[in-house]
Amino acid sequence: AVAAPAIAQSAPEVKWRLTSSFPKSLDTIFGAAEIISKSVAEATDGKFQIQVHAAGEIVPGLQALDAVQAGTVEMAHTCSYYYVGKDPTFAFDTAVPFGLNARQQNAWWYYGGGREAMAEFFNGYNVISLPAGNTGVQMGGWFRKEIGSLADLQGVKMRIAGIAGKVMAALGAVPQQIAGGDIYPALEKGTIDAAEWVGPYDDEKLGFYKVAPFYYYPGWWEGGPQLSAYINQQKWAELPKSYQSILTTAAARANVETMAKYDSLNPKALKRIVANGTKLKPYPKEVMEAGYTAAFKLYDETAAGNAAFKKVYENWKPFREEQYLWFRVAENNFDNFVYRMSAKKS
Amino acid sequence: AVAAPAIAQSAPEVKWRLTSSFPKSLDTIFGAAEIISKSVAEATDGKFQIQVHAAGEIVPGLQALDAVQAGTVEMAHTCSYYYVGKDPTFAFDTAVPFGLNARQQNAWWYYGGGREAMAEFFNGYNVISLPAGNTGVQMGGWFRKEIGSLADLQGVKMRIAGIAGKVMAALGAVPQQIAGGDIYPALEKGTIDAAEWVGPYDDEKLGFYKVAPFYYYPGWWEGGPQLSAYINQQKWAELPKSYQSILTTAAARANVETMAKYDSLNPKALKRIVANGTKLKPYPKEVMEAGYTAAFKLYDETAAGNAAFKKVYENWKPFREEQYLWFRVAENNFDNFVYRMSAKKS
Repeated sequence: AVAAPAIAQSAPEVKWRLTSSFPKSLDTIFGAAEIISKSVAEATDGKFQIQVHAAGEIVPGLQALDAVQAGTVEMAHTCSYYYVGKDPTFAFDTAVPFGLNARQQNAWWYYGGGREAMAEFFNGYNVISLPAGNTGVQMGGWFRKEIGSLADLQGVKMRIAGIAGKVMAALGAVPQQIAGGDIYPALEKGTIDAAEWVGPYDDEKLGFYKVAPFYYYPGWWEGGPQLSAYINQQKWAELPKSYQSILTTAAARANVETMAKYDSLNPKALKRIVANGTKLKPYPKEVMEAGYTAAFKLYDETAAGNAAFKKVYENWKPFREEQYLWFRVAENNFDNFVYRMSAKKS
Repeated sequence: AVAAPAIAQSAPEVKWRLTSSFPKSLDTIFGAAEIISKSVAEATDGKFQIQVHAAGEIVPGLQALDAVQAGTVEMAHTCSYYYVGKDPTFAFDTAVPFGLNARQQNAWWYYGGGREAMAEFFNGYNVISLPAGNTGVQMGGWFRKEIGSLADLQGVKMRIAGIAGKVMAALGAVPQQIAGGDIYPALEKGTIDAAEWVGPYDDEKLGFYKVAPFYYYPGWWEGGPQLSAYINQQKWAELPKSYQSILTTAAARANVETMAKYDSLNPKALKRIVANGTKLKPYPKEVMEAGYTAAFKLYDETAAGNAAFKKVYENWKPFREEQYLWFRVAENNFDNFVYRMSAKKS
C-alpha cells in the first residue's frame, strides 16, 4: 500500500468566528484579536481564517464566555474578570486588586503555575484560555470632586465592577455597573460621581476629561490586567496540531505587541489630557492602604468558601510575594533612579 | 491553462542552522532560540526546521553577526551590543546605560519607531533583526570589596564590556574583556576585582558567590536588554511569505516567554544566593549619578561623530523621555506601593 499525501489533512480550510468583548473604536484592545487573526491567516496561507467580530455583532461583549462555552462561536477575545459573577476565580486570569504587574502576570502564567491552575479551572467552562494582551497598570478613574482622604470617598457613586467594586464598597464608595457607552452621560449629569475605564489612550476617546476634572492614579485594582483568548475545547480538539501551535504562538504575539502598543500610545494621550486642564492626582495613601487590607481580607474570605478560588490563590499568593522580593531589588531600583533623574531635568 | 497546485511551493522543506551566542548551560537565554525552533517546526508540520547550535559549535559566540552576514548560517540568536566595536549603534537594539526597561524596549521596537530605525541600520549588515527575548534589569555585578563611594571604584578592575565599560572607565574603574568561562578563575585569583554577568539565575550557575561576597544592584547599564534573532537577508527573501510570518511570530513568542522565564526563576535563585552569605548592596547614589552624566555625555559625543548612531539616538531619546513621564504615573506608583506593603509584612 502507498500512503496518500497527508497535505489535505494537515492543512485543511478552517473558518472560525471570534467574538470580541470590545468595540472597534478601542483599537488597542480590539486590535489584539486582529493580530491573532492576521498571524494565523499569514501562517497558513489563508487556510485558517478567524473572522473578528466586535462586541454586539454576534453576542454582547459580556456574553463572550457563554458563546464560546456553547460553541456559538469558536473563540473570543475578552477579559476573564468580566465573569466573576459566575465565579471569582476568573479574576486571577485578568487581575485582582494589588496583584501582579504585566510582567509578573506573564511570569505566573507561562512559568509560575498559572497556566496549569487556570486550565484546570477553565475545563469546567469548556474553554481553553490563552494570554492575549495586557494594558499595564491602569489609571484610577475620573472624579467630579477631589478625593483627599478616605472620608471623601464615602458615598461616592463610582462606576467600577467586579472584585474592585467590592473593595471600593468596603472603603465606603458605592460601586455602579454601567456599560462603556453609558458612562459619559451618567458622569455628565451627576448620576455617578466617578468612573474608571482603562488608561489615557482609551479614556481620552470617551471624553471623560470634559465632565470630570480629577484623574486619579494608579488603578490599584489592575496592576497588569491580562486580555484572554478563549477557545471552545471541541473546536480546539478538531484543529490539526500545527494549527493549535500557530494559534498559541499568535496569542503570545498579541500579548507582547498589545502591551507595547498601549505603552507607545498612552504617554502622548496623557500629555493631551493634562493640556486640556485635567488635574492628575495620586490616590491618598490611606485610601490605598485601606484598599490593600480590604482586598486581602476579601481573598481570604472567598478562599474559605470556594475551593477553586482557594486552589489558585494558594499558588498565586506565594508566587506574588517572591516576585515582589526580586522586583524590589534590580527592577524597581533602576526604574526609580531613572525616573527621578529624568524628572529633575523637566 | 490550468494553474498547478501551489501547495508544493507554499510549504517547501527548509532546513536552517541557527548559531547561538550562548552555551546550552544558560537554559533561559539559550532556550529562547529553542522556542523559535520548536514553534516554527510545529507550525509547519516539521517542514521548516531550524537546528539550534550552541556558541562554538559552528562559530564562536561573538561571531554570530559575521556568520549571518556572510551566509555561513541562515540565522543567529545573539545580543546586538556584542558588536559595538563595529558600530556603537548596535547597542540600541539591546540596551544602553540608563535606557529603556523591558516593556519600554518593546514599546520602542514594535510601535515607537525602533523597528524601522534598526532595520535601516541592519540593512548595512545584510541582516534582519527581530526581538527574541529579554532578561529584564540585570544585576550590577560581583565585587570582592565593598563599594561605598565613587572613590572606592577608582582602579577597580571590572569585567564589563562595550558602552557600559566606557562609562565605567569614565568613573575611574578599569574595564576588562573576559569571556564568560574565564571570569570565575580571574575573580578567584584577584586578577580582576569585580565582574558583571546577568542576574541571579545565570550568575548562580557560574558560582561567583563563592569568590566575591558583594552583589550590587541594579545593573544600570542594562535596564531591559533585548536578545535578538538575526536572519540573513537573502535567506529571508527566499522564504515563502507564510514562513516569514511564522518566524516573526515565533520570535515574538520567544520574546515574551523568555522574559517570563527569567522572572519566574530569578527570585528563587536570589534567595539561594543570599542564603549562601552574599551581601546584597545598592550602588551608591553618587556612583549612579556620575554614571548617568557620563553616559549621556558619551551618547552626545558619539552622535556628533556617527550619523547612524545620531539618527537612532534622535528617535530613541525623546521616546524614552515620554515613556518615563507615563511610567512615573500609574506603573511606578503601583509598583512602589505594593512592594512597600509587601516588605512591611516580611
